[in-house]
Amino acid sequence: MKKHILVVPGDGIGAEVTAVGKQVLEVIAQKFGHEFSYDEALIGHVAIEATGSPLPAETLAKMKEADAILFGAVGHPKYDNDPSAKVRPEQGLLQMRKELGLYANLRPIKLFDELLDASSIKPEILRGADILFFRELTGDVYFGKRERIDEGNTAYDTMIYSKYEVERIVRKAFEAARTRSKKLCSVDKANVLESSRLWREVVQSLAPEYPDVTVEHQFVDAMAMLLIKDPKRYDVVVTGNLFGDILTDEASQIAGSMGMLASASVGDSTGVYEPIHGSAHDITGKGVANPLASVLCVALLLDISFGLKAEAQTVIDAVDAILKAGFRTRDIANSTTPADKILGTDAMGEQILQRLNA
Amino acid sequence: MKKHILVVPGDGIGAEVTAVGKQVLEVIAQKFGHEFSYDEALIGHVAIEATGSPLPAETLAKMKEADAILFGAVGHPKYDNDPSAKVRPEQGLLQMRKELGLYANLRPIKLFDELLDASSIKPEILRGADILFFRELTGDVYFGKRERIDEGNTAYDTMIYSKYEVERIVRKAFEAARTRSKKLCSVDKANVLESSRLWREVVQSLAPEYPDVTVEHQFVDAMAMLLIKDPKRYDVVVTGNLFGDILTDEASQIAGSMGMLASASVGDSTGVYEPIHGSAHDITGKGVANPLASVLCVALLLDISFGLKAEAQTVIDAVDAILKAGFRTRDIANSTTPADKILGTDAMGEQILQRLNA
Ligand SMILES: CC(C)[C@H](C(=O)O)[C@@H](O)C(=O)O
Ligand SMILES: CC(C)[C@H](C(=O)O)[C@@H](O)C(=O)O
Repeated sequence: MKKHILVVPGDGIGAEVTAVGKQVLEVIAQKFGHEFSYDEALIGHVAIEATGSPLPAETLAKMKEADAILFGAVGHPKYDNDPSAKVRPEQGLLQMRKELGLYANLRPIKLFDELLDASSIKPEILRGADILFFRELTGDVYFGKRERIDEGNTAYDTMIYSKYEVERIVRKAFEAARTRSKKLCSVDKANVLESSRLWREVVQSLAPEYPDVTVEHQFVDAMAMLLIKDPKRYDVVVTGNLFGDILTDEASQIAGSMGMLASASVGDSTGVYEPIHGSAHDITGKGVANPLASVLCVALLLDISFGLKAEAQTVIDAVDAILKAGFRTRDIANSTTPADKILGTDAMGEQILQRLNA
Repeated sequence: MKKHILVVPGDGIGAEVTAVGKQVLEVIAQKFGHEFSYDEALIGHVAIEATGSPLPAETLAKMKEADAILFGAVGHPKYDNDPSAKVRPEQGLLQMRKELGLYANLRPIKLFDELLDASSIKPEILRGADILFFRELTGDVYFGKRERIDEGNTAYDTMIYSKYEVERIVRKAFEAARTRSKKLCSVDKANVLESSRLWREVVQSLAPEYPDVTVEHQFVDAMAMLLIKDPKRYDVVVTGNLFGDILTDEASQIAGSMGMLASASVGDSTGVYEPIHGSAHDITGKGVANPLASVLCVALLLDISFGLKAEAQTVIDAVDAILKAGFRTRDIANSTTPADKILGTDAMGEQILQRLNA
């Protein structure tokens, strides 16, 4: 198979982890006889520094041409502490999602058995948990009108959804539920929000088309509690952009660490594969970031964008194997991990590559 | 001390738990020689059924006259599954908050040692956790304009904050931080939302007035993760209405169960004391609801509205004592709890009263 992949490292630890992801892609190509070509592009803070724009036209053009995009992270503390900044790294990420029509963000939350002890949640609560989140990604308060009014003394954002936007993501979730345990949980705040009532209406109107799927509705506040109280109760979960942002970060504790979670953003064109961990400037450049989320992004990319299921499984098996062999990055180590098994980003990448080459 | 207390049971288990709370108030009055008078009023679904309005004028009038309000819960599944309902129980709650100017919702999250094992989170993560949440309660997307447009195909809600609204709640949080461990964490989504940038600006502008308090900012998604990964890292947390709704429900797992958490809503007039657990229709009428959140509401009421610190401590000590004696409601029992120590609502109330009378 011949494919062109764009690597977009972005900010912070993005460069460190996507470097490992790219090496994994290359080994898979060799092993399975595929021909992958690569290019790189800038986004976020590094793009602002180089070009003034968080999503340069050149990057967007390259994205539209690629068969898939391996993404790092965006964000920089400089802007976080300057509420008045007009140009921000995150604008690049949001514009990309919108321009590429990436309305469905899939976040699989599954614990590798070996990491049962890495979480703050009790192992008996976690064992067997396996949740697939569908987070809507191009609507909601992320893209509604926002403004300062009243001489700067008041600010508002608009939480907005149209039926067609809800329908297309909810359909994807229903279809995924069909291939899994036929349970769908939709999360909203319909007891207060009109946009949530529209969301719930759409879910209710589609349910009869999927009679084999059992639908449950939860309010986002209750869900934030239930998710960690009894994660096994959930299988496919679908929710809006903001609630999905919050709940999936929370759910990272179910998988032991944020450093283990990959996501796929798909929709109208090129798929984007992005760890959920973000730019993590506190550990940038220290060589300790967990590259496994980026490696698992590669598995999602191979599976979803290229339909290469065996290749994807090979990557997942390699991750499983090195965890079984006891290797850990700092974020998934615990007090019983022997010091010589705690690896940095590159050494962990090395282990994965060796395993894939074996 | 002579005081007038309005009991507002509301919906679902509200009546069952406030009945216990009221008995506790009465015993405290006798024990300490106070004179408490009581009245009752309707809100939520029961008020709609009786009067057509979720917050009848009579209820509001009684609320304004009372020295403090012991509140149950509002909500009914009937409306949750009918997105088109025009009159809803929750409107009563939101109107009450607005009309009484209850802009500060305090939610103390503290684990009773005896319940270390009741949570899904590991005991070693929880031991010593003690967080005081300040949730803003009369602004944000709860009170902004909402509407259906585009022939019903689009819905929006407005997330809106003005500086003075942020300032008054953030000041309360700073002041509380001063009396505790001098750490304040403010939660927003300033990398995306304009209302969050305004929020952060206000926090930054007030910080110099409280040089003894260390301020940290977290994004809400990261916070949803950090809160359960390392709850001991946080002391006083301040956030907006929506993020506070989600994060405090999540944080209930830190206290073992939602059934243990009380909240105080204060501001311009009468304080309202309300469990965070909600109406819980799935267990309504079964006599199994945990009354301890309502009992702990009484402690908050005595402390905050009446300044009766010794009385409040007596109530907390009674809760502690019966937990030490091994008594549990279902929600805080575990597999090692002897069957005869698992009590229903009234029997648990009985234990508390006996202890207070001892
Ligand atoms: C960086 C930020 C804008 C982004 C989001 O909120 O969507 C991130 O948290 C994510 O989840 O991808
Ligand atoms: C019932 C509902 C409207 C309410 C809220 O969202 O504020 C509840 O969840 C709470 O936390 O008091």
